[in-house]
Amino acid sequence: MPGEQIPFSFGLWTVGWQAQDPFGAATRPVLDPSYAVHKLAELGAWGFTFHDDDVVPFDADDDTRERALASVRKAADETGLVIEMLTTNLFGHPVFKDGALTSNDRSVRRFALRKVLRNVDLAAELGARTFVMWGGREGTEYDGAKDLHAAHERYAEGIDTVAAHIKQRDYDLRIALEPKPNEPRGDLLLPTIGHALALIARLDNGDIVGLNPEVGHEQMAGLNFTHGIAQALWAGKLFHLDLNGQRSIKYDQDLVFGHGDLLSAFFTVDLLEHGFPAGGPRYEGARHFDYKPSRTETERGVWESAQANMDTYRKLAERTAAYRADPRVRDAMLRAGLFELAEPTLSAGESIGDLLADRSAYEDFDAYAAAERDYGFVRLNQLAVEHLLGGS
Amino acid sequence: MPGEQIPFSFGLWTVGWQAQDPFGAATRPVLDPSYAVHKLAELGAWGFTFHDDDVVPFDADDDTRERALASVRKAADETGLVIEMLTTNLFGHPVFKDGALTSNDRSVRRFALRKVLRNVDLAAELGARTFVMWGGREGTEYDGAKDLHAAHERYAEGIDTVAAHIKQRDYDLRIALEPKPNEPRGDLLLPTIGHALALIARLDNGDIVGLNPEVGHEQMAGLNFTHGIAQALWAGKLFHLDLNGQRSIKYDQDLVFGHGDLLSAFFTVDLLEHGFPAGGPRYEGARHFDYKPSRTETERGVWESAQANMDTYRKLAERTAAYRADPRVRDAMLRAGLFELAEPTLSAGESIGDLLADRSAYEDFDAYAAAERDYGFVRLNQLAVEHLLGGS
Amino acid sequence: MPGEQIPFSFGLWTVGWQAQDPFGAATRPVLDPSYAVHKLAELGAWGFTFHDDDVVPFDADDDTRERALASVRKAADETGLVIEMLTTNLFGHPVFKDGALTSNDRSVRRFALRKVLRNVDLAAELGARTFVMWGGREGTEYDGAKDLHAAHERYAEGIDTVAAHIKQRDYDLRIALEPKPNEPRGDLLLPTIGHALALIARLDNGDIVGLNPEVGHEQMAGLNFTHGIAQALWAGKLFHLDLNGQRSIKYDQDLVFGHGDLLSAFFTVDLLEHGFPAGGPRYEGARHFDYKPSRTETERGVWESAQANMDTYRKLAERTAAYRADPRVRDAMLRAGLFELAEPTLSAGESIGDLLADRSAYEDFDAYAAAERDYGFVRLNQLAVEHLLGGS
Amino acid sequence: MPGEQIPFSFGLWTVGWQAQDPFGAATRPVLDPSYAVHKLAELGAWGFTFHDDDVVPFDADDDTRERALASVRKAADETGLVIEMLTTNLFGHPVFKDGALTSNDRSVRRFALRKVLRNVDLAAELGARTFVMWGGREGTEYDGAKDLHAAHERYAEGIDTVAAHIKQRDYDLRIALEPKPNEPRGDLLLPTIGHALALIARLDNGDIVGLNPEVGHEQMAGLNFTHGIAQALWAGKLFHLDLNGQRSIKYDQDLVFGHGDLLSAFFTVDLLEHGFPAGGPRYEGARHFDYKPSRTETERGVWESAQANMDTYRKLAERTAAYRADPRVRDAMLRAGLFELAEPTLSAGESIGDLLADRSAYEDFDAYAAAERDYGFVRLNQLAVEHLLGGS
Repeated sequence: MPGEQIPFSFGLWTVGWQAQDPFGAATRPVLDPSYAVHKLAELGAWGFTFHDDDVVPFDADDDTRERALASVRKAADETGLVIEMLTTNLFGHPVFKDGALTSNDRSVRRFALRKVLRNVDLAAELGARTFVMWGGREGTEYDGAKDLHAAHERYAEGIDTVAAHIKQRDYDLRIALEPKPNEPRGDLLLPTIGHALALIARLDNGDIVGLNPEVGHEQMAGLNFTHGIAQALWAGKLFHLDLNGQRSIKYDQDLVFGHGDLLSAFFTVDLLEHGFPAGGPRYEGARHFDYKPSRTETERGVWESAQANMDTYRKLAERTAAYRADPRVRDAMLRAGLFELAEPTLSAGESIGDLLADRSAYEDFDAYAAAERDYGFVRLNQLAVEHLLGGS
Repeated sequence: MPGEQIPFSFGLWTVGWQAQDPFGAATRPVLDPSYAVHKLAELGAWGFTFHDDDVVPFDADDDTRERALASVRKAADETGLVIEMLTTNLFGHPVFKDGALTSNDRSVRRFALRKVLRNVDLAAELGARTFVMWGGREGTEYDGAKDLHAAHERYAEGIDTVAAHIKQRDYDLRIALEPKPNEPRGDLLLPTIGHALALIARLDNGDIVGLNPEVGHEQMAGLNFTHGIAQALWAGKLFHLDLNGQRSIKYDQDLVFGHGDLLSAFFTVDLLEHGFPAGGPRYEGARHFDYKPSRTETERGVWESAQANMDTYRKLAERTAAYRADPRVRDAMLRAGLFELAEPTLSAGESIGDLLADRSAYEDFDAYAAAERDYGFVRLNQLAVEHLLGGS
Repeated sequence: MPGEQIPFSFGLWTVGWQAQDPFGAATRPVLDPSYAVHKLAELGAWGFTFHDDDVVPFDADDDTRERALASVRKAADETGLVIEMLTTNLFGHPVFKDGALTSNDRSVRRFALRKVLRNVDLAAELGARTFVMWGGREGTEYDGAKDLHAAHERYAEGIDTVAAHIKQRDYDLRIALEPKPNEPRGDLLLPTIGHALALIARLDNGDIVGLNPEVGHEQMAGLNFTHGIAQALWAGKLFHLDLNGQRSIKYDQDLVFGHGDLLSAFFTVDLLEHGFPAGGPRYEGARHFDYKPSRTETERGVWESAQANMDTYRKLAERTAAYRADPRVRDAMLRAGLFELAEPTLSAGESIGDLLADRSAYEDFDAYAAAERDYGFVRLNQLAVEHLLGGS
Repeated sequence: MPGEQIPFSFGLWTVGWQAQDPFGAATRPVLDPSYAVHKLAELGAWGFTFHDDDVVPFDADDDTRERALASVRKAADETGLVIEMLTTNLFGHPVFKDGALTSNDRSVRRFALRKVLRNVDLAAELGARTFVMWGGREGTEYDGAKDLHAAHERYAEGIDTVAAHIKQRDYDLRIALEPKPNEPRGDLLLPTIGHALALIARLDNGDIVGLNPEVGHEQMAGLNFTHGIAQALWAGKLFHLDLNGQRSIKYDQDLVFGHGDLLSAFFTVDLLEHGFPAGGPRYEGARHFDYKPSRTETERGVWESAQANMDTYRKLAERTAAYRADPRVRDAMLRAGLFELAEPTLSAGESIGDLLADRSAYEDFDAYAAAERDYGFVRLNQLAVEHLLGGS
């Protein structure tokens, strides 16, 4: 992205995280949202995002709510930062202890839906273009605790209702579902990019529903994040994303981007900044960081960590640009057959009958000779490692 | 399933596995397929399945192929066992070292497609109703080794071509995709049930394409198998399945069904045999075992292990029937709100406007009171454990 | 353990957990420790345990402390429950954000040591025989954040100092280290049973230091809990243990015992209740539950879940007794060579020279014939599954 | 390591791997060991290592064995490569299907011991200084399949016997145990660095027994490799190591070093090349690669991948040298308190009584003030990432 600003944005809940965890109390004081916006602007961010409850307390009356929102809006105006996405907290309050849109309790489901719809109106009012829905507690600890058919029915009903509302109000807003395999529930519904895409395919209003995949969430299932967003792009559904770091399969770490699997981050940035080697759909949205400054950090560390996300992304953008421009990489891609995969397996106009009649494809095909093909995948990967390491 | 035979079937490659693994040579001799069919019949199986290469050597000439197939067909006739599913080996031969339908090498893709189409014809001829496609080597070790957009394009093209062939020939056959997260490649395409459902949703001929999920494959990604098949059932796509055992996230173990996560197996059988508590789609296919008799076993152990799969499934069918029939379980389900989840969140005919106007849903909703709800999920799960343990 | 009471005990922090998690607020009110002790007594527990901070607030003055402790002591006296173990909270307060005995800050290390020593005195005073040390925050998120040699030095120094204090005061008390691989830090020191045993071996006062392994903690690293406690028993170091449930590799779930890997729980109880098949050291301590009633539960669910732990353990004690008594199991054990493993590989008095001279061991050994041995491990495991399922 | 050659060595089984895996046949022909030695020399290796069966077929008669060994010895002489380590294949042949030193079959245990002893003599004869023992099949799939006390007894007996033989013959040779959590068995004995250290501590001849940890093996259990080797160094037991790459918790990938978790590799090299920041024991052995050239590679890729291991290691050696030399890093280490951890918690000569009497340590300690400490761990880690990325 030469000559252009990379559109970095941050959730206010990231730098604002007070660092309470399952085994310990908060180590940092409350951070005023407006102050946080100004600090992010100073660091060079382009936008910010928030949950309703990040800015407006759950129990706030209308006046408190207005004042809180006005303050954030003012900060956005003063700094020029874009409020690019909004999302709803459907997991913090005890009422959501069995989930929200799929709570076994119908009154909770209705309340949750209203909370979301109110937030959708706010998102539209603030000019956000993306509305993220993370089903933080849609799930179970015990397989028998939910009718799993009904759960999917209700999940789809809930999302479809929100999407219908967006359409009825003619908002310029798209929904982005955020998958996660587990935590805080034992097994979450829509555990991966794939499961969320599969649900979207069955919605009435699926055209305005896509994904907000998070690096760490896919990696918590041992899945390849770059593979995942590639499938989402292929499906036309990569609406937004959450960048951060995770080290192997364990609790949700939300480390700084690049502080987890750095080689995977290299290829994620490579895809985001330079697209698929043989062309195809591109991601156009924010480079959004959803991370947590470690609990050991004071406010100084909070801003250092925010900065680190952007610095590493920018450096990887440079490194991947050099990777793509390197003639040795081009040669290795050709050797590997990378572009050959973009060629359809059947020729233009070739029927199945034609294929069946093509003896060169089967009867006369020398499988043993073809098996000798030298793809050189290790060499190509080593070139990536070299570029990641900053070349010679 | 009182009074009825449960339709158990086995892959011939399961009992026929010679137990060569990445660190050691085979410990068992070749098992004649026809002999295996007779033994499975003696043990009480209802059907069997196979890969082309399980019965016909990769390089076989037409005569050899015919003789091999005739022998298996004869065994099926003699025993009355149903050949309910066929599948294609697209992973064993070195030619498939970079995959088959998504190999970077187009000639390999064409060869693979021909191998599949030939096998589809055979499946139809043998009366199989399901045609499983496992993308054993469709994937990468290195993120840069494939154009990931093209890979999904080619995967879809391949499956759509096979489906088109089935339609053109008017075969009574459905395709079932088998997801797996990794092994033998570092990251496989279509790693989970979700990813495969998402791909199917974009196929031209997706109506005859569904899933063949495997217990261990989902568990290798730390995912809940029962959740997964529930989503597949909800999508109308649970065409077939592979039952086995896996102990946590590690290499693909293919243990006997029930020798992995037994509590999960209880709920899987509960769903397969008794359906969702509040009704909905049912699985009607074979109870198919895809397991490996441990490498330590001799032929005696092979048949003991085959028997064990069926014995445990039957026992779990009984245990789950008792669980469903227990009035304490019914009470616990009511307490948990299990059936309440089947009720739509919006009332019949209720518009979004109506919901927004319903003050009881939001303005007058007492979230703190609702948060006190006593779901009793642990109690319900403990009743399951008690029934699993055979009651008092 | 026929005719005897199984010595069940509970941490007060288990039933007292208010269910605050990383994504949500508490769903249950504070539970008075004295009330909890009485309830546990009613349910049939034999003992209870606690962290200092479970009973005495971190900041309590001496009067408050005395009153709080007196109340718990009174409850113990009234109910007859044994205070069998005490432990120190070195993770909740922000001061421990970089650990306690291995904090980079020496003043924190000294404070932590004093907090522990004070608690050791209390443990002795209350008649506890085991003093558990869990290094809740001894670890790092980032490999460079600690001098890892110094960290092990300090960890050993801290434990040795506590052990020396116990010896100097002549307390009838043993230390039990509790390993955990990660959470709340990215990587904890002493991540597994093995690492803790290895540290103990290098202590000056290691003779009174052993282990308190937790089911879920080992399983969070994909390790076999029964294997782990077997090695600890072999080393003479299984001083205490924490029973609970975990489903695969993910965040620390602390489910009810038996609500995780049930087949693993079967073999754990089998070892605890019946010892190694061929004899050897036995575990004599409390059957201690360290679990969390799910966040969905109200107080009713808290007691149901406490009960469930004991019920399942008792049932597994019965099932494993039947397993051991079953002649088919005995036969299968013989077939498997289980008792043969207890025979030393070298004969009594056999020197290495003798072994080298024994041609039957090598030169004349028929490896191919020996490779045919029929161990029948699957059969043996299936007998365990049958007994777990309550037999026919 | 400026101006010095880094002592790189390779297992002959690495470049010689024919790429047969659990789902497919070999893709590469047999590689002559002598040829491999010459190629490795050309690439700049310093040494090589092998299993007995890598060079001498399992069934070889004495003549064949002598010729095979002579050829390898000649290659070593011609190239100047050091045969720095030998190891024994106790997993490939079916006779070892239930393990070797812990096989339930005593005759197998005796045979295994003889095979090892013979190989020890060879190791000494060839001048190797390290003798690696990997318990490839010492373990179980089923918890009931072994008496786990007896298994540890036999494991210890076996290792002690080998060590005694080394002492009796006065060989200049040390044993290095290689832990692995699973694969090819469901659960291996000595699953981690910790478990192996713990066993060594109980050996009669443990003084000459240490560890050969492998990057991927620890990471298969989600453990931090650098933490692990740090504990081994602290215990004086890091005798040898296996460098390679692994991507998260899954089957054993054996990727090129640096093709897995690259940030972890940075800190591993940092420790190996520059020691602990505050001083302490150093690793002095070979930088030994135990990896597998991917199955997709032809011989060209084999050598490219061998080269890649060394190139990345060298580059990381440079990058970590710059990291250590960077004054910003020094400042960040000071801020983090890295060197403060090397200071004992008790002062020189301070008794426990003195500590108890020090009111500043507890009574007058302001925990809230100390909790404000600014460690800046994220900043320090970001400096590592910057250096890894090759700086600006």
